[in-house]
Amino acid sequence: MSSSLGTLFRISTWGESHGPGVGVVIDGCPPKIPLSVEDLQKELDRRRPGQSKIVTPRKEADEAEILSGIENGLTTGAPIGILVRNTDQRPSAYTEMQSAYRPSHADYTYDAKYGIRSVSGGGRASARETIGRVAAGAIAHKVLLRDLPNYECIAYVKSIHDLEADIDPNTVTAEQVESNIVRTADAAMVEPMVDLITQMRSEGNSVGGVIECVIRGIPPGLGEPVFDKLEADLAKAMMSLPATKGFEIGSGFEGTLMTGRDHNDEFFIEDGKVRTRTNRSGGVQGGISNGEPIIFRVAFKPTATILIEQNTVNNAGEETTLAARGRHDPCVLPRAVPMVEAMAHLILTDHWLRQKAIQA
Amino acid sequence: MSSSLGTLFRISTWGESHGPGVGVVIDGCPPKIPLSVEDLQKELDRRRPGQSKIVTPRKEADEAEILSGIENGLTTGAPIGILVRNTDQRPSAYTEMQSAYRPSHADYTYDAKYGIRSVSGGGRASARETIGRVAAGAIAHKVLLRDLPNYECIAYVKSIHDLEADIDPNTVTAEQVESNIVRTADAAMVEPMVDLITQMRSEGNSVGGVIECVIRGIPPGLGEPVFDKLEADLAKAMMSLPATKGFEIGSGFEGTLMTGRDHNDEFFIEDGKVRTRTNRSGGVQGGISNGEPIIFRVAFKPTATILIEQNTVNNAGEETTLAARGRHDPCVLPRAVPMVEAMAHLILTDHWLRQKAIQA
Amino acid sequence: MSSSLGTLFRISTWGESHGPGVGVVIDGCPPKIPLSVEDLQKELDRRRPGQSKIVTPRKEADEAEILSGIENGLTTGAPIGILVRNTDQRPSAYTEMQSAYRPSHADYTYDAKYGIRSVSGGGRASARETIGRVAAGAIAHKVLLRDLPNYECIAYVKSIHDLEADIDPNTVTAEQVESNIVRTADAAMVEPMVDLITQMRSEGNSVGGVIECVIRGIPPGLGEPVFDKLEADLAKAMMSLPATKGFEIGSGFEGTLMTGRDHNDEFFIEDGKVRTRTNRSGGVQGGISNGEPIIFRVAFKPTATILIEQNTVNNAGEETTLAARGRHDPCVLPRAVPMVEAMAHLILTDHWLRQKAIQA
Amino acid sequence: MSSSLGTLFRISTWGESHGPGVGVVIDGCPPKIPLSVEDLQKELDRRRPGQSKIVTPRKEADEAEILSGIENGLTTGAPIGILVRNTDQRPSAYTEMQSAYRPSHADYTYDAKYGIRSVSGGGRASARETIGRVAAGAIAHKVLLRDLPNYECIAYVKSIHDLEADIDPNTVTAEQVESNIVRTADAAMVEPMVDLITQMRSEGNSVGGVIECVIRGIPPGLGEPVFDKLEADLAKAMMSLPATKGFEIGSGFEGTLMTGRDHNDEFFIEDGKVRTRTNRSGGVQGGISNGEPIIFRVAFKPTATILIEQNTVNNAGEETTLAARGRHDPCVLPRAVPMVEAMAHLILTDHWLRQKAIQA
Repeated sequence: MSSSLGTLFRISTWGESHGPGVGVVIDGCPPKIPLSVEDLQKELDRRRPGQSKIVTPRKEADEAEILSGIENGLTTGAPIGILVRNTDQRPSAYTEMQSAYRPSHADYTYDAKYGIRSVSGGGRASARETIGRVAAGAIAHKVLLRDLPNYECIAYVKSIHDLEADIDPNTVTAEQVESNIVRTADAAMVEPMVDLITQMRSEGNSVGGVIECVIRGIPPGLGEPVFDKLEADLAKAMMSLPATKGFEIGSGFEGTLMTGRDHNDEFFIEDGKVRTRTNRSGGVQGGISNGEPIIFRVAFKPTATILIEQNTVNNAGEETTLAARGRHDPCVLPRAVPMVEAMAHLILTDHWLRQKAIQA
Repeated sequence: MSSSLGTLFRISTWGESHGPGVGVVIDGCPPKIPLSVEDLQKELDRRRPGQSKIVTPRKEADEAEILSGIENGLTTGAPIGILVRNTDQRPSAYTEMQSAYRPSHADYTYDAKYGIRSVSGGGRASARETIGRVAAGAIAHKVLLRDLPNYECIAYVKSIHDLEADIDPNTVTAEQVESNIVRTADAAMVEPMVDLITQMRSEGNSVGGVIECVIRGIPPGLGEPVFDKLEADLAKAMMSLPATKGFEIGSGFEGTLMTGRDHNDEFFIEDGKVRTRTNRSGGVQGGISNGEPIIFRVAFKPTATILIEQNTVNNAGEETTLAARGRHDPCVLPRAVPMVEAMAHLILTDHWLRQKAIQA
Repeated sequence: MSSSLGTLFRISTWGESHGPGVGVVIDGCPPKIPLSVEDLQKELDRRRPGQSKIVTPRKEADEAEILSGIENGLTTGAPIGILVRNTDQRPSAYTEMQSAYRPSHADYTYDAKYGIRSVSGGGRASARETIGRVAAGAIAHKVLLRDLPNYECIAYVKSIHDLEADIDPNTVTAEQVESNIVRTADAAMVEPMVDLITQMRSEGNSVGGVIECVIRGIPPGLGEPVFDKLEADLAKAMMSLPATKGFEIGSGFEGTLMTGRDHNDEFFIEDGKVRTRTNRSGGVQGGISNGEPIIFRVAFKPTATILIEQNTVNNAGEETTLAARGRHDPCVLPRAVPMVEAMAHLILTDHWLRQKAIQA
Repeated sequence: MSSSLGTLFRISTWGESHGPGVGVVIDGCPPKIPLSVEDLQKELDRRRPGQSKIVTPRKEADEAEILSGIENGLTTGAPIGILVRNTDQRPSAYTEMQSAYRPSHADYTYDAKYGIRSVSGGGRASARETIGRVAAGAIAHKVLLRDLPNYECIAYVKSIHDLEADIDPNTVTAEQVESNIVRTADAAMVEPMVDLITQMRSEGNSVGGVIECVIRGIPPGLGEPVFDKLEADLAKAMMSLPATKGFEIGSGFEGTLMTGRDHNDEFFIEDGKVRTRTNRSGGVQGGISNGEPIIFRVAFKPTATILIEQNTVNNAGEETTLAARGRHDPCVLPRAVPMVEAMAHLILTDHWLRQKAIQA
C-alpha cells in the first residue's frame, strides 16, 4: 500500500518522470461533486515547472486528462482516474547519474531497496510524482467546500534559508500568497527571497525553507484517536512529500520553552461557541480539531540535486565525483506550496468522511 | 481503524484510565520469537507512574498478563492479547472535570467529536493508553533483534524547557540514559533538570521538552515510497503520542538554514559498504533507510493538566475556572522515553516485514 | 491483518481454546449506542457449548467482561475490549493430538505455516475463536437497530445431511428458530434432525449441513463496487467461519439452470417504492442492496474431529492412526446459527457506516 | 477502498465502459519480475469481446499501454499503471436504458446508492471493469512463477445451464481449455454448449453456468487465520466478479451430504511429503493451503441484459417495459474463465508475499 493514502477518500499515485506519464486514482469520492478538468488544471499550473524565473525551466504543460468517474460535470461515486503525459524528457542528462549516486537524493536507497538501478524507479522520488497528489487534492478541496463552505486552506512560504517572512496566519489571504512568484505573503520579503534563489541558481547551489499552512472553517470533531490523530495524519502526509525534514503544529518546538500555565489555551465562549483565547494547540487537541484555525509548519531541505561537483560513489561501489546536469529547482518551496495544500485537503477530506460515518 | 497501527505487524490498543483496564492486541507477529511476560514488564516499568520523585505518584503496578499467542515461551503466529488491569482509580478527583474542560486537554474535543461527556472517553487521551504501545513495542523489539542482531534504538531527553543536554547520538548508550531518572545522557544536566521539574511540581505548573532518538543497525532499504516513507511513518507514530507538537529527522528545521552544498551528505566507501560522511539525512533518503543511524527528535509540550487555576468553560457552555486536582506528571518526558522507543520499534518492525515480503 | 475484519466497524479477535481466554476489540463503534453485557451474553449463550444434548458437553459459561468503551450504559466511541476467560480446559485430551494431525483439521496446515507445533496455535482454528465474533456481532446488531429499526437478520438450519427443512425465508421468525435446539424452523424436521445428530454422536461420527440466512430492513444502496460488493464481503465473512465449504446468494448454484428471461427479477412499483416481483438476486444487484430481503446460504462440512480411528501422519513424518478423544460437536450447525448472524451484522454495519460517509 | 483489493500486492481498478478508457494500478509488485505488454495482452485477448461467435460482437481491441513501473523489461518495484482506451462506444444503444432499469442489472442499485443516473457509473458494473483485473492478474501470475515454478492455475467451464462437462481437475490442461471457444475441457460437450449459447443469442435470451478452477504447485502454508483464510479471500475475489451467485471449495455444498468419516481426507506420506488420499478439503484446511491442488467452483447467473421485452420501472418511478438493445454476451462464461484465473493469481500472490514476510 506504499502508493496509496487514505481510509475512505483514498488516492493511489503512479508514474515516473522518465516514463510515459504520471497519474492518480481517487477512490471513495462522494457522488454529485461538480468537477471539471479546469479545477485540476488550476492547481497543477501552480505546481508545474517553468511557471516563473525561480523554478526549474523544464517545459512541462502538465495537462490532465480525466479518464473516469465524471459524467455531465459531476462525480459519479466511481473511482476517478487522472493521467498527465510526460512531454519533456531528456534522458541524456541522466546518463551519468545512472551510475553515480546523487548525494542526499534517493538514488542509492532505491537501489538498496529494489536491487535494481532504475532511473524510472528513482523517478518516484522526484517532485513529478506529486502531480497526482495535487490533482487529487483539488478534488478533495471541492468535496470539503460542498459540505463546509467556510473551508479555507492557505499555505505560504514562511522562510527561505534565513529570510523569514512576517505573516499573520489569522489574516493571510490566498490572493496575497498568489500575488508573488515565491508564494510568500510578506511583501517586503519577496525581492530578497527572489534574489537569494536566483543567486543560488547561478551558483548551481540550492536552498530550503519552511512552509506554514493555515486551515480555517473546520468544525470541532475531526481526527481519530489514537493513531489517526489529525496532527499525526497531517505529519505523515507532509513528511511523505519530497525534501521534507520536519513538521510541527501550533507552538511546535518553540512550545517546549514555555511552562504549562503559559502554554495552555484558555477556553471562553464567543457567540455561543467554545473558543480558545490563544492557539498554541494549532487547532487540534487530543488529536481532534477544536474549531480554531489549524496551523502547522513543514521544513524543506535545500534541493539535493545541485550542479556543484561533489564526492560520491557509483553503483559499482567505486568512489567518484558528480556534478549534476539538467534543469533543477534551486529551491522547491514556491512549487511545494500547492503540494502542502493538496496533502492537507486530502487528509481533511478523509477525516471529514470518517466523522460523517459515526454521526447519528 | 483509529486504534490500529501497522500494515503487517499490526497493533490495536483499547482501554481507558478509569475503566477496568487497558491492553493491546498484536496481530502479525512472526512465530517462534522467544517472549515472556518479563520482556514486557521491563519496558512497562520504565513507563509506569510512581517510578521516581519527578513523575506522577499514582500507584499503578501495571502488571501485564499475556492472554494469547504464546506457547512454551515462543510466539505461535497467533494474535497476542495483553491485559493490564487498572488498580489505582480515584474517580472523585475527576468529578469537577466532568463538567469543566481542562484547557489544552482533550476534554472538549472528545465531547465535540462523540457528543458524549465521558471521563472514560477522555481517558483514551491519557498517557495510560500508551501501555499497550509499550508492551507491543517490546515484542516488536524482539522480532527485530532476531533478524537484525545489531539493532539498537535509544531515546533520551534532549531538552527540558530551556535546559539542553549535550549528547552525541553516535555514541550514546542505553545505560547512560537509564542511569538517571530524567532519562537524559548528559550527566551535567541531570540535576538541573530534576530541580526544574521538582520546582514545577511544587508550583502546580508543568514543562515540556524534546526527546531525541537514535536507531542503529537498520540495513539500507526499509521504507515504502511514496506515502509510507520511513520518516513519514515515524512522524505519524510519534505525533500520535500524547502531548507531541513536532517531529524532525536529521537536520530538521535547522537544516533549512544551510545551502544544498553544505547540507548534502557525500557518499564514500568504508569496508566495502556505502556510507555517508555526514548524516543530515538522519539515516533516511527518499523515504528509505540508507544504513546510517536514524536520528529524529520529538517535541513534547508542557503537560496540559496543571493545578493552577485557569479560565475555561464547562459542558453547559458557561465560562468558569478550573484548578485540576489529582496526581499528574509535571513533565511527561522521562516516562515518554520508552514510548518513543516503542513506537520506533513498531514502525521498524512493520517496515522490516514489508521489505522481506518483496525480496526474492 | 489476519485477525481483523472491517473498514470502519473493525473487529480484531484473539485467543485460543487452550490459553487463558479469548476476546475481541471492536474499533469504530459509533458513540451513544446503548450496550450492556447482557446484550452480549444473550448471543454468547446461543453459541456456547453444553447448551443442549446435541452439542458438545464441554462446560464453558462463556461469561463476557466488557473492559472498555462503555460508560453509563452507552458506547463512548472508544474501542470496546471484551474478554471471556477459558474455564474448562482439559489439555490431557489433546496430548496425543499434539503429534498426530487430525484429518481435515487445521493441525497440519498450522504447522506448515508457522513451523511450530502448537495446540494453542491450532486453537485459533477451533470454534472457540468465534466467541469474539459473536460478541462483536451483538454490538453491530445494536448499531443497525438504532439507525434501521426494521432491521432483522435470521439464520436457521436449512438442512442437516440429507434432511432438508421447508422454510419460507420471507415469513420465518426468530422465535421459530429459537424454539428448538437444532435452530431450524420446520417443526416436522426437528425430531429427525435431532435423531440424526444423536446417532452420529453415538457412533463418534459427524454430519454437516446448510444454514440459510434472511436479512430484512436493509435499504437500497449498501455495498461498494467493485471489490467490496455486499455479496463478496458476506461470502468472505461466512467462508472465514470454521468448517464452511460454500456460499451462495439468491438463486445461487441452482440459478445456473435457468435462462435469463426466467431468472431476471422484474421491477414494479409498490407504495411508491421500487420492488422486484421475484428475488433470485437475493437482495443484491451489482454488489449493492436493492431493498429486497438479502438471502444467502452457507455450507458447513461434517465436523472434522471424530472419535472413529482414521489413518493419518504425525509431526515426525510417520504414518499412524488417530481416534480423537475429548468432547466435540457431532454437528456444528445449531451453534453456527448465531455465528452466521453475527458475521452478517458485522458486514452490514460496516457497509452502513461506509454508505453514511458518502451521503451528502 | 471499494476499488482496491489486496494487502501487499494491491490493485486499484478504474474506468467505465462509456468513458475514455479503463485501467488499473498495481502497487506492491516485487522488483525484477520480467514483464512485457505482451504478457498482459495475451490474457486480455482471452477476455476481450469479439473473440468468437458465441460472445458479444463488440469490436474492442483492448490494447494495453503500460504507463509506469517497468524499465528495460523488468518491474522496478514502483506501481504499475495500465491503460486500455475504449474504442467502440455506441452510447445511442443506451439512451433508453438511461431511464429504464434493466431487471437484475445494477442500474437501479447504482442510482439508489449514488443518487445519480449515470451510464458511466453503471458502467462499473459491466464486464469491462474486469480488464484491469485480468491485466493485473497476468502480472501476479509472473510473480508466482518466479518463486513457484510449478504453479499452475487452470479454470474451465464446468457447466452451461444443464450441460455438465466431465473433467478431472487433477489432469486437465490449459491447452485442453484453450482448444475450444467455450473454454471447457470435455470434447464431447463443446458442440452442445456452443449450440445452446447460439440458440440463446438468437432468442435474445441468455444462460449461465459454473466455472471450476484448479490450482497446482502451491506449497502448504498460504492463508491467514482467521479472517483472511485462503478460501475466504478466494470467495470474496470470485464473488466480486460480475454475475456471480455462488462459490464453493472442495466438496462444497455436496459435502454436506457426507458424514465426517467419509468426508475427512486421511493423511499419508509420499516421497517424504505429507499428502491426503482424497481432496474434499479442496487444498485448504483451517484457511491454510495444505499442498494439495486447490479446487473451487463459481456459479455465474444468466446474463441480465437480454433482448426480450421485460417489465420494469424507470427512474421517474413509473412502470414500463424494456427490451435491451446493443451487443451483449448470451453467456458470460467463456470470457469469465480468464477473469477467474486472474482473481486467483491475485489472491495467491498476495498471500504468498504475506507468508514470505513472516518467515525467518
